[in-house]
Amino acid sequence: MALLDELEAALGDDVVLTGDQISERYRSDESHSGRALPFAVLRPATVEAVSQALAICDRHCQSVVPQGGLTGLAGGANPRGGDIALSLERFTGIEEIDAAAATMTVRAGTPLEVAQQAAEKAGFLLPIDLGSRGSCQIGGNIATNAGGIRVIRHGVTRDNVLGLEAVIADGTILSSLNKTMKNNTGYDLRQLFIGSEGTLGIITRAVLKLKPLPSSRSTALCAATSYEKVVSLLRMAKLMLANVSAFEVMWDSYFRFNAEALGLKFFDVDHPFLVIVEEDLFGNDQGGERFEAFLAAAFEEGLIDDALIAQSEKEARNFWSVREGYTMDKMLPSLVNLDISMAIGRIGDYAAECGRAMLARFPGAHVSFFGHIGDSNLHVTIATQAGTEDDAHTIDEIAYDLVRQYGGSISAEHGIGTLKRDYLGHSRSPQELAVMRHIKAALDPNGILNPGKVLPPV
Amino acid sequence: MALLDELEAALGDDVVLTGDQISERYRSDESHSGRALPFAVLRPATVEAVSQALAICDRHCQSVVPQGGLTGLAGGANPRGGDIALSLERFTGIEEIDAAAATMTVRAGTPLEVAQQAAEKAGFLLPIDLGSRGSCQIGGNIATNAGGIRVIRHGVTRDNVLGLEAVIADGTILSSLNKTMKNNTGYDLRQLFIGSEGTLGIITRAVLKLKPLPSSRSTALCAATSYEKVVSLLRMAKLMLANVSAFEVMWDSYFRFNAEALGLKFFDVDHPFLVIVEEDLFGNDQGGERFEAFLAAAFEEGLIDDALIAQSEKEARNFWSVREGYTMDKMLPSLVNLDISMAIGRIGDYAAECGRAMLARFPGAHVSFFGHIGDSNLHVTIATQAGTEDDAHTIDEIAYDLVRQYGGSISAEHGIGTLKRDYLGHSRSPQELAVMRHIKAALDPNGILNPGKVLPPV
Repeated sequence: MALLDELEAALGDDVVLTGDQISERYRSDESHSGRALPFAVLRPATVEAVSQALAICDRHCQSVVPQGGLTGLAGGANPRGGDIALSLERFTGIEEIDAAAATMTVRAGTPLEVAQQAAEKAGFLLPIDLGSRGSCQIGGNIATNAGGIRVIRHGVTRDNVLGLEAVIADGTILSSLNKTMKNNTGYDLRQLFIGSEGTLGIITRAVLKLKPLPSSRSTALCAATSYEKVVSLLRMAKLMLANVSAFEVMWDSYFRFNAEALGLKFFDVDHPFLVIVEEDLFGNDQGGERFEAFLAAAFEEGLIDDALIAQSEKEARNFWSVREGYTMDKMLPSLVNLDISMAIGRIGDYAAECGRAMLARFPGAHVSFFGHIGDSNLHVTIATQAGTEDDAHTIDEIAYDLVRQYGGSISAEHGIGTLKRDYLGHSRSPQELAVMRHIKAALDPNGILNPGKVLPPV
Repeated sequence: MALLDELEAALGDDVVLTGDQISERYRSDESHSGRALPFAVLRPATVEAVSQALAICDRHCQSVVPQGGLTGLAGGANPRGGDIALSLERFTGIEEIDAAAATMTVRAGTPLEVAQQAAEKAGFLLPIDLGSRGSCQIGGNIATNAGGIRVIRHGVTRDNVLGLEAVIADGTILSSLNKTMKNNTGYDLRQLFIGSEGTLGIITRAVLKLKPLPSSRSTALCAATSYEKVVSLLRMAKLMLANVSAFEVMWDSYFRFNAEALGLKFFDVDHPFLVIVEEDLFGNDQGGERFEAFLAAAFEEGLIDDALIAQSEKEARNFWSVREGYTMDKMLPSLVNLDISMAIGRIGDYAAECGRAMLARFPGAHVSFFGHIGDSNLHVTIATQAGTEDDAHTIDEIAYDLVRQYGGSISAEHGIGTLKRDYLGHSRSPQELAVMRHIKAALDPNGILNPGKVLPPV
């Protein structure tokens, strides 16, 4: 039977979209780098249907691109013209919240925010959180090992997945919906799928850790004169505060650009580094005295020159709005946002050297830096005057060559997809790439799952 | 060239032990189940030597058993007669502590306690901790994904490994000494080696997370009347205390046995469940008020009937000595200690049903339960009157059959090795076992690494 006929016969007409039924939505993730529509879209609503779809495609050696909320920034969910897209959008819903185990069992297509709200309703915090929470899906969060804004306290997505169900290329369902913190029974297969961007299997269900909901939070905006002092401040915060839940650093040019764009002013003079420090509080703990003692000690040691404690949620939101910098994208439409990581102590030098190199190549460009420094994660934001694709390519070359020199990672949280694929060798050795290819061949011998993503051509 | 000649030529005489040079030490781990000495022992002191040794053995299809501190309890490091043992005992030492990144780079043969002390000297906590800290080695901790007594706050060993270097069967060195919290550059190969008990590669170096040292700690011993109340107490502790660092539960018979053996008395009456609750404190935080408010709330809600707050380190040590129960092994020489996990809410029923089944089969046996319940980890301790190997086998059958019914894991923290190998199918599906074998074949096509361990014969 022809492939599409076989898929329709097995899955039903409503699961298989072709021709005009395929909307623009399926063309690209948020990197807007997708060039083609898939030739068919499958929207299975059960794990068994995902399994059948893959088994059929595998027999036909038909390539399949898994798609979640399409909020990625690395092109990982973009189809090529000959690909079938398999979207999890109809496999949604929370199957269980186990309050005693503090776990949530959730289907892959569930939007992150829906899962967060369900957790909160049950009195828990779902610790995975990122800007695109409204659109991104749990399956995609896991497939890309999403980072986000709570990593310093709760780790990356990998650290919050207890159990996983995934379907590999031949249709085999691997189900391990483990709810325990400790489970040493053979190879931890869930780790293969987390962060492999749909190239080893399609994630269908997960058991996620839930954490206690903080009762409140202390937030400060601190000003420091050097990166070294920022690092000392991080260490002091971890030692003196019970639960540091954010340590976000903005270099002066990033802070000023966004504060001005938002019409916000916090300090009378400019400072080289601005840091948002946040502490989660539990029970009756108001934390005020401890938080003030921390800031006083930081002053005393000369680590900070000024600091503001948010007196309300609105004030805290103001600090964060500068950090989020959502207006920046609109004001600088050609903005390139790079996502890298390296040992925390080296980030200051990297940023200085990277900034000099960018301005030498692109005089007059906007170059700024911010990052989840508590997670060793730096973002570089650059807008050249021409804003061309060639410029973007040159920016990549300059930034990633320096990352290699600094022993860092070319992708902290966005993944590799297609856009960083050709730089993977900057952060991983030829031996590691060879073993990745072995693993890929062992699990997907026909190479049908998301071909062209993550692994550079040999 | 003959294998041993080739090894000696490549590595030097002092690295290769044969015949009388091989002491009893290399026969068995702490399960005392090893039956044979290896026919040679290799003690390489560099990564390059490990690589050369494996490359030579792989060419000769010679099986190799990696050995660390030999403190395992599942037979994972036991040689068969034809095996070569590769011991990391000479590849020791801490290579770097990066205070800014809060990481330690350490060689695989380093005893855990040596690494802990080095971290403390630098003002940090190395969060991996277990009873055998004096003898176990970092490489073995990682290869078995060790659990231990700080998991509720810091996770298992897997959660504390940032970077890893390992040598696979053909001698390829895979080095990824990553120091960052976030690194999404292709497949996370370190996960393959963590917990695979030396069957996929030999771990040589690791980058471990360091955490801030607590300034002090609050400890209480609480008495409760039901397992359901214990679970509610756990949830309340997590909500009201900033950093619960232990939640250890003893069923009455375990508690009474050990308290009597140690000559300690805490309460006037017996209670069905005893719980050690501990909170880590940071900076100037004395935590006293918060801790008392938690216990008061637990009384008020009827979750506990009595509680003692340790007024000194010595009092806290007394609570812990009952929990550790080191005298138990001496008083009950045939004691079987099982290590299982399941969803926290199901553990109470499991223990009740398991206890009844054991006493029905072995009237008069000692049967007791304790566990890191905050980590979903239960230990079952049983001594029959005959104390035979047949009894031990029957105990396994009864306990693991029930684990399967309860959807649990037959190994929470001890691993599979040889002793639990034939029960692996109780916790993992045939599909999962098939994929594990694919992975094994992809990385070790000649099957030289720790054959006969973890994966049951097909």
